[in-house]
Amino acid sequence: MSNRVAIIGVGMCKFGELWDKSLVDITLEAGMYSIFDSGVRGADIDGLVIGNMSAGRFTGQEHLGAQAADIGGLGDMPAYSVEAACASGGAAVRHAYMAIKSGEHDVMLVLGAEKMSDVNQTEAMNTISVASDWEWEGMFGATFPALYAFMARRHMKEYGTTEEQLAMPTVKNHANAAHNEWAQFQRAVPIEVVMKSGLLADPLRVLHSAPITDGAAGLVMCREDLAKKYTDTPVFIESSEQSGDTLALHDRQSITTMNAVVNSTRSALKEANLELKDIDVFELHDSFSIGEIILTEDVGIAKKGEGGKVIEEGITQIGGKFPVNTSGGLKARGHPIGATGVAQIVELALQLRGDAEKRQVDGAEKGLAVNIGGTGATSIAHILGR
Amino acid sequence: MSNRVAIIGVGMCKFGELWDKSLVDITLEAGMYSIFDSGVRGADIDGLVIGNMSAGRFTGQEHLGAQAADIGGLGDMPAYSVEAACASGGAAVRHAYMAIKSGEHDVMLVLGAEKMSDVNQTEAMNTISVASDWEWEGMFGATFPALYAFMARRHMKEYGTTEEQLAMPTVKNHANAAHNEWAQFQRAVPIEVVMKSGLLADPLRVLHSAPITDGAAGLVMCREDLAKKYTDTPVFIESSEQSGDTLALHDRQSITTMNAVVNSTRSALKEANLELKDIDVFELHDSFSIGEIILTEDVGIAKKGEGGKVIEEGITQIGGKFPVNTSGGLKARGHPIGATGVAQIVELALQLRGDAEKRQVDGAEKGLAVNIGGTGATSIAHILGR
Repeated sequence: MSNRVAIIGVGMCKFGELWDKSLVDITLEAGMYSIFDSGVRGADIDGLVIGNMSAGRFTGQEHLGAQAADIGGLGDMPAYSVEAACASGGAAVRHAYMAIKSGEHDVMLVLGAEKMSDVNQTEAMNTISVASDWEWEGMFGATFPALYAFMARRHMKEYGTTEEQLAMPTVKNHANAAHNEWAQFQRAVPIEVVMKSGLLADPLRVLHSAPITDGAAGLVMCREDLAKKYTDTPVFIESSEQSGDTLALHDRQSITTMNAVVNSTRSALKEANLELKDIDVFELHDSFSIGEIILTEDVGIAKKGEGGKVIEEGITQIGGKFPVNTSGGLKARGHPIGATGVAQIVELALQLRGDAEKRQVDGAEKGLAVNIGGTGATSIAHILGR
Repeated sequence: MSNRVAIIGVGMCKFGELWDKSLVDITLEAGMYSIFDSGVRGADIDGLVIGNMSAGRFTGQEHLGAQAADIGGLGDMPAYSVEAACASGGAAVRHAYMAIKSGEHDVMLVLGAEKMSDVNQTEAMNTISVASDWEWEGMFGATFPALYAFMARRHMKEYGTTEEQLAMPTVKNHANAAHNEWAQFQRAVPIEVVMKSGLLADPLRVLHSAPITDGAAGLVMCREDLAKKYTDTPVFIESSEQSGDTLALHDRQSITTMNAVVNSTRSALKEANLELKDIDVFELHDSFSIGEIILTEDVGIAKKGEGGKVIEEGITQIGGKFPVNTSGGLKARGHPIGATGVAQIVELALQLRGDAEKRQVDGAEKGLAVNIGGTGATSIAHILGR
């Protein structure tokens, strides 16, 4: 276990519609908080990676690695930018994990950022659609709400998932976010409000859907043997696994399961030598509420088809057996695309350190994050332990 | 040396204005050639990485890792997309290098691709500018020709570099490309034609500048101990080093040297335990002819200020002491942004294998590629050996 990779610092900006801040501002904010939290100095860091999906379209800037290093006063540092659609943040964490394991880097600053509200809604929707198979999905109007609506409708038909169940991830995640000062929506919503919110793509409603968000999140990661120099509460990456699937939803045998999630989670548990019952806290990619239901099944919390039942029974609430999205998830913490996967790891690290305050899962020792791209063409699973 | 990373297959599509091919077509073509060349089967490959700068803007598609894996029939494979402006290809090579060294991957397909001709010229120029510091350079009209023109004019003033010398990299690189069947411009151009070509940004002319190109390039990389299973002529990555600099040109102490090139090259030589005189063949990033002159100095072939003199003396021609851009370089092979850094490694691998045909450097044993992003905010240096 001597080559484990440690997380020694975490930070974020408050997610939201940040009209008065630029992509550079929020990246800097998340990076600074992470560095302060870790106790490292800038000079101790020897590499930077940033997860981002489409700053080229959202803000007219690529080369974000070099930019982030530059604005942070770390201009001569090797800096990388990685992209895997909504899994760009998870890809940044995995990039740093491999870079540190390879011996090429010792201490890295890992960032995820997206500034989505500087373009109009049509351009935002089109830009989000570049994460789908543009030639076969986005171009024909199959936006993400539409694609996830197919999945939801099919899940209801095959398994009897109800409209009430479809609303429950939102209710749970908003309740959790009420205790997260970094979340975009720090307030509970009653199920009646969710179920009466505007239809986006039948059966999915506005309040089943993650919002358009500006935000950035950060981590400081390093080799295990360096971690104790900086902190008494390091958290370790027990495993990092990634799997893929067809880019287009219609190419899959089933649209109610995500094979990449099944495979990456299974590999991550195996690599960490753990079983699902050993995991105390989960961050699962809920860009739409049906996504959380499907992921609950695909990681193994629920049997296939019983994701709706499991949320109804309260198993995934804080205090339940398998708490999911204690942070508020993508729905209520917000979903700035490239930041999401990093923010998931931030939440798990806080939980394992015992720093999650009113949303703390008592005695959490192991956490699983699953960050997906598109409708599941990419899935990146990380297991953290303390 | 047992953890070296080997290159066992190379491939490209012919670069050019490929009106009848899509980004998917050319990516597939380069990937297939690389796989065929390597002798691996698809099932032997356990990871894919693609370097690309801005497919989101050029072709309306992100999530290129998942897409490349999907179209190649490798849909469940972990797939990564990396971006570092014009150094995106080099970043993909370095990503694979670290991923293999980390033990997370054994055999990887490394791709670089960009389809630039599907948008109009204004949009192309704006998109290329997202590699600069958009808020401080691109937005004010300081396009790349303008930024490199500053560097050229200053170099002429400080060191007496002449207009004739500024034209010589183009003449040399076109002569080399005449023997490269993958190059965009397979023909020599006389110096008079270069010097009379239209002014782009004084003193830089159209024929001092790399073209807008569609193209893709590929490599198959693996652990050293697996390489002999597939090939008798593996080439090894002796070192991979990356360094950074300020994103904006005006933030630097000097605009006639690129510190990131100096630092990454120095580190790469040190890591490989080599001196510059040991290098037999070079691929140096010549997006503009002044770029090749400055890089010739910054890697150490010429003393500072003597890059013009060195090219005039023929030292960097094939047959000279330090042959540079035997492939034709960015100027004549073409510069599809994300593909360039991979294509540089393809050329070095062919040279070290003795497969470079009429442009072969006799007995080449070591090669150095330097791939830069922007005006040098990123520099990635790879040393290859056989």
